[in-house]
Amino acid sequence: MTVEQVSAVRSFNGTQYVFKHKSESLSCEMTFGVYVPDHTIGEKLPGLLYLSGLTCTHANVMEKGGAQIGASKLRLIFIHPDTSPRGEGVPDADRYDLGQGAGFYIDATRAPWSSHFKMRSYIESELLATVASVVPALDSARVGITGHSMGGHGALTLGLSRPDLFRSISAFAPISHPTECAWGHTLFGEYLGDEAKEEWKKFDAAILLSSYSGPARSILVDQGTEDNFLKQNQLQPESLKSHRAATVELRMQSGYDHSYYFIATFMYDHIEHHHKQLIQ
Amino acid sequence: MTVEQVSAVRSFNGTQYVFKHKSESLSCEMTFGVYVPDHTIGEKLPGLLYLSGLTCTHANVMEKGGAQIGASKLRLIFIHPDTSPRGEGVPDADRYDLGQGAGFYIDATRAPWSSHFKMRSYIESELLATVASVVPALDSARVGITGHSMGGHGALTLGLSRPDLFRSISAFAPISHPTECAWGHTLFGEYLGDEAKEEWKKFDAAILLSSYSGPARSILVDQGTEDNFLKQNQLQPESLKSHRAATVELRMQSGYDHSYYFIATFMYDHIEHHHKQLIQ
Repeated sequence: MTVEQVSAVRSFNGTQYVFKHKSESLSCEMTFGVYVPDHTIGEKLPGLLYLSGLTCTHANVMEKGGAQIGASKLRLIFIHPDTSPRGEGVPDADRYDLGQGAGFYIDATRAPWSSHFKMRSYIESELLATVASVVPALDSARVGITGHSMGGHGALTLGLSRPDLFRSISAFAPISHPTECAWGHTLFGEYLGDEAKEEWKKFDAAILLSSYSGPARSILVDQGTEDNFLKQNQLQPESLKSHRAATVELRMQSGYDHSYYFIATFMYDHIEHHHKQLIQ
Repeated sequence: MTVEQVSAVRSFNGTQYVFKHKSESLSCEMTFGVYVPDHTIGEKLPGLLYLSGLTCTHANVMEKGGAQIGASKLRLIFIHPDTSPRGEGVPDADRYDLGQGAGFYIDATRAPWSSHFKMRSYIESELLATVASVVPALDSARVGITGHSMGGHGALTLGLSRPDLFRSISAFAPISHPTECAWGHTLFGEYLGDEAKEEWKKFDAAILLSSYSGPARSILVDQGTEDNFLKQNQLQPESLKSHRAATVELRMQSGYDHSYYFIATFMYDHIEHHHKQLIQ
């Protein structure tokens, strides 16, 4: 595994790294960012994986999310990958909500997407090992998952499906019920096929929650009341209902929108939410 | 005075505004940002003016500077204008360190710049009154000034020249001695003329400090040791020496560079520095 360091910048008594590597799952070069608080040699720190929303790269949350201050204070490694495969050989579409920048954290089964769009496998099987190879301080047994919008969908569905990998879960304005919203119809239809409706359900947070029977999870969800995508019914956070071992705390944040100003405002709360569960 | 609201976004229990207006000093339309913490009607809050560096607009610090968290907590209005006049009728140059994006916070006297490049007058005479017209909570008698790089130069020189307007001063990696660095030679030469060397001295922080005799000022300066512009001798923070009523605390920050990661890391300290002096 060859991982190349693109940059390393000092930030809040730690280092904000960007790396790139050839991804086997995605058959292209991928870029990811990692913020690492200062630590002693041999020390292990918990990690938090942040999945970004439609159109984003690894860079948006790095520049605008304000995660470094909380990750530094609570001593947690913050990992933020890109949102899809990218590059000249990778299929794309002339719309922001499909193709490059819109991986949706699932494995596509339909052409042309199935050749590269395997973000689910990338996150589950490749990313954390790749991070650990260059950031040995990462304690891979103590990793939480969060994300925004499409990435909130990714965090909830991956977190609920793979409690063995992710010990804590939260989300910012997640696409909570994609089998019932326009973005989900577009993306599932293209990546999985309109006929594969049973398959769709495996990647719907509201549905996964309703049958969750894994280890206890306390899930924090923040949602701005002035979020245009909430008003367009793309997000449907009210569909996230506590069920058995999974409890959902949905906080409706008055006046906040869908932007990184919203994310930055509540980022510290989310880092603290994960930290509390990961240090147990 | 007509000031148009471009946007208003909820952030950290406050509002991040962007406004635009027709500037008389600069003879063009100007954009500026203001972060306003929530407050009661009639309440007055101190302000902090942040001047940005070369190539920046009002947006860089708004998105990457992390000022909102500190301004919210300490209840201070954060004001961040653009760095120069802009637009089709405004002179420009084919280099990043001259013309649009490089106003240098002085009033140009040479053609073609003198028609628009009057950032000094804009900041001293027009900006704060314009802000106060749309943000009545601003207490114009309690305003501090800070900035980064070219904006650090602006903050130090304006702060030392106009203690009646600015009651507290700090800077991030300021161009401290522009009469003796390449950027200063270029910009003073173009805007003021190579023959006007005496005039140059009025806009050199190191020189202004050496003759300062105004009210007591305690100036905080942060400088990263891995800043490439420090190594290129453009910044020269060591030239900032305490003199009579003006004391300079220069903090060399090990490993930090010239980026917004550096600024964000120390932004809270600067907001606190100003807050302490402005609430007295």
